Amino acid sequence: MTAQLIETHKVFEGEQRKYRHYSETLDCDMVFSLFLPKQTDNKSIPLIWWLSGLTCTDDNFSQKGAFQKYASQHQLAIVMPDTSPRGTDVADDGNWDLGQGAGFYLNATQEPWAKNYRMYDYLTTELPQLVYSLIPNFSGSESIMGHSMGGHGALVIGLRNPERYRSISAFAPILNPTNVPWGQKAFTAYLGPDKKAWADWDATNLIAKTAVVPPIHISQGKADAFYEVQLNEEAFLQAADGKKVTYEKLDGYDHSYFTIASFIEEHLQFHKDCLR
Amino acid sequence: MTAQLIETHKVFEGEQRKYRHYSETLDCDMVFSLFLPKQTDNKSIPLIWWLSGLTCTDDNFSQKGAFQKYASQHQLAIVMPDTSPRGTDVADDGNWDLGQGAGFYLNATQEPWAKNYRMYDYLTTELPQLVYSLIPNFSGSESIMGHSMGGHGALVIGLRNPERYRSISAFAPILNPTNVPWGQKAFTAYLGPDKKAWADWDATNLIAKTAVVPPIHISQGKADAFYEVQLNEEAFLQAADGKKVTYEKLDGYDHSYFTIASFIEEHLQFHKDCLR
Repeated sequence: MTAQLIETHKVFEGEQRKYRHYSETLDCDMVFSLFLPKQTDNKSIPLIWWLSGLTCTDDNFSQKGAFQKYASQHQLAIVMPDTSPRGTDVADDGNWDLGQGAGFYLNATQEPWAKNYRMYDYLTTELPQLVYSLIPNFSGSESIMGHSMGGHGALVIGLRNPERYRSISAFAPILNPTNVPWGQKAFTAYLGPDKKAWADWDATNLIAKTAVVPPIHISQGKADAFYEVQLNEEAFLQAADGKKVTYEKLDGYDHSYFTIASFIEEHLQFHKDCLR
Repeated sequence: MTAQLIETHKVFEGEQRKYRHYSETLDCDMVFSLFLPKQTDNKSIPLIWWLSGLTCTDDNFSQKGAFQKYASQHQLAIVMPDTSPRGTDVADDGNWDLGQGAGFYLNATQEPWAKNYRMYDYLTTELPQLVYSLIPNFSGSESIMGHSMGGHGALVIGLRNPERYRSISAFAPILNPTNVPWGQKAFTAYLGPDKKAWADWDATNLIAKTAVVPPIHISQGKADAFYEVQLNEEAFLQAADGKKVTYEKLDGYDHSYFTIASFIEEHLQFHKDCLR
């Protein structure tokens, strides 16, 4: 299991790297990006997972997230996987909200998706072993965060593994995919029409049934065009009653990376406080 | 002379806007981006021009420059024009370093370029009037900066109008285009083979003959793959002898926007000190 370094740029004294590797889980070549801070003391380095939204690749956050200054200051490594399996041999769909670029961070059970679309296993088993080996002086501590479909991914992965991740955060996450159009379309295709199979991939269901959850911080722009239909928080907050969830609504901010850039300092401070 | 607002995003309490307008100077439709800070006091707002490099549009700096935090803090408006005239009726070239995306911020005299390629006039006469009208409480003060081809543009425009701009800065600028391949190719096409016509578009020649110049700050990555062949500073610094030029070389940093993001705070602090 090796990865080929295909690009690196110095940024805020750290390195923004890009790797290519063959994933056995996904049965295709994948790329991912990794930010490594310059070590300024002897402290070990924790890892944060960033999961992007529909249509994105590993590049969106690395180029538009404006996070490197704070990851450098706090000595955090950040890994940015792609959002689905990729390649001409991988099943796809003509629409932007299904298939390549829209893996929804689950393990598909239905054809033609089941062969490659196993992002959950990739992100929780195969890719971690590879990424750990690339971080000098890795502390062993991990947190997870994401945007939109990636916010759903961060919550689902974090809530299914509550002892593994120290903290979870999300920008504009799909909080209740079984009840909104994006989630219903994707889950029907990847998991089949039986909604019983959907429950373990829905953050609202997962937080209700998980006794102890890591601290969760969510930011949602009030001017986000997807807010009412795809991202509504009511069911999730009700299910999360009594758990450590902060849900912040941002006046005037939309679904774009400009919102992420504006509040990434706050999110990384939250994770750092949980990781250190 | 009007511009249509086609996009806006809240970012760091300010607004990242995009406008479309018809340019009489360039005889085509153009877009440009404009960052407006939220006014936090009654101070008037100065304007900084950002000029991008080869292949770029108005989007590169707005999405990858990570400048909005500091422009918001210092109450600076920043305008990001496109890098050439655009459209199917506008002359182009199959290569990335000539034609659309490669206007070189000059007024072309040769066919087929002379009709549309008048970026100098556009940026110094037509577009300013439009942009001034879009800044609430504009202070009347301007500075100019850019990257690579846009660093050349910022220096040429700034040095040809030394009383108009309070300060000039550049990342990895083409400092002596008449003596490097990028400049020679573009100037031969746009201005013809007679090198006498090139002199007024070369920062090294301009700084030598300009008695009083605004403060100039230049950052150059030492790991920039274009540094030796396209961006060498020796002739420029010799010509600038005795003038207010700081030239900073950055260990390990390359030609990418990751370098710009890492040092944009420093550049905006420099301009702010000259503008306020």
